[in-house]
Amino acid sequence: MTTRSARTAERRAEILRAALEVIAERGYRGASLAAVAERVGLTQQGLLHHFPTKEALLVAVLAERDQWDAVPGGGWRLDLLGQLVEYNAMRPAIVQTFSALLGESVTEGHPARAFFTERYATVRASMAQVLRAEYGERLPSGLTPERAAPLLVAVMDGLQYQWLLAPESVDMPEAFRDFLTLLGEEPSPGGN
Amino acid sequence: MTTRSARTAERRAEILRAALEVIAERGYRGASLAAVAERVGLTQQGLLHHFPTKEALLVAVLAERDQWDAVPGGGWRLDLLGQLVEYNAMRPAIVQTFSALLGESVTEGHPARAFFTERYATVRASMAQVLRAEYGERLPSGLTPERAAPLLVAVMDGLQYQWLLAPESVDMPEAFRDFLTLLGEEPSPGGN
Repeated sequence: MTTRSARTAERRAEILRAALEVIAERGYRGASLAAVAERVGLTQQGLLHHFPTKEALLVAVLAERDQWDAVPGGGWRLDLLGQLVEYNAMRPAIVQTFSALLGESVTEGHPARAFFTERYATVRASMAQVLRAEYGERLPSGLTPERAAPLLVAVMDGLQYQWLLAPESVDMPEAFRDFLTLLGEEPSPGGN
Repeated sequence: MTTRSARTAERRAEILRAALEVIAERGYRGASLAAVAERVGLTQQGLLHHFPTKEALLVAVLAERDQWDAVPGGGWRLDLLGQLVEYNAMRPAIVQTFSALLGESVTEGHPARAFFTERYATVRASMAQVLRAEYGERLPSGLTPERAAPLLVAVMDGLQYQWLLAPESVDMPEAFRDFLTLLGEEPSPGGN
């Protein structure tokens, strides 16, 4: 990488971080390119050089966010999901950005709608794989992996809202481990 | 009620319906009083006569929404929750308004934040009561009602997002019944 392109990549990363913060604070519809530009000390013109539209910036933010969740070298395992939730509990700003965008995405014509629709189809399918790897064709409850997968995803998302609104009264990692117990995992030591 | 106050009440109800629609389409931050006023054939001044601020209108929308969920004459039962979810699946616009507002409520200084924070504390407590009435101090999984309640709430909220984004691939009432099975209910006939 040349010095010049390294500088460009660095600047892009700075802009993405700033955009994440602004979206966490105001949502996407409430966010302005001017606010993002100001936070990184650029003019709005300067920002448009890196991201030609507000939507292009949003798409880049979403792609970036998904990368952080990627598991290097392969698929998820059920016990790693508990660790992901613990990790999320240490990064409220990221969770807030994601939760604000998910909420907005269901409104009419939102530019993140297609992203989230596809993402959930993918995530449900990969959670079904995780559950199949752990339990085979039937969970202890009798549910198939495909039937349990949307519940696993729903609990993760739903707990994030409760936790963001009241972090002192909702222990998100503990609650998620409780859900794994419902699915059929052995209760973790010291739990409940 | 006098004719005059009946007309006022009717007009208020119309405005609330319009506000619900506009919030479902654009979220609260994206909604404008002008758009709501236009939808009911009022000037913005005329609208302000009924609701002096955008926030006052939001508070009224949220209060109205909670009333629809109220169970006449007492508490919820676990089997009625399944019916609530079925009912919700027939009113996507209401669910969309709620889900968009919940998403926005986690952003900084959002006027619905206090409402949702209090609402979730109340809903978790009342779900714990429902679970205690059904199972006593321990669910079949060993969880206490207080530990299972946030999961019940999380599943309802989380499924709403997946269903709004892909109504043809997520059967929300069926998925919720699956969750009740995980909690310890007998699977419903024909299920799974």
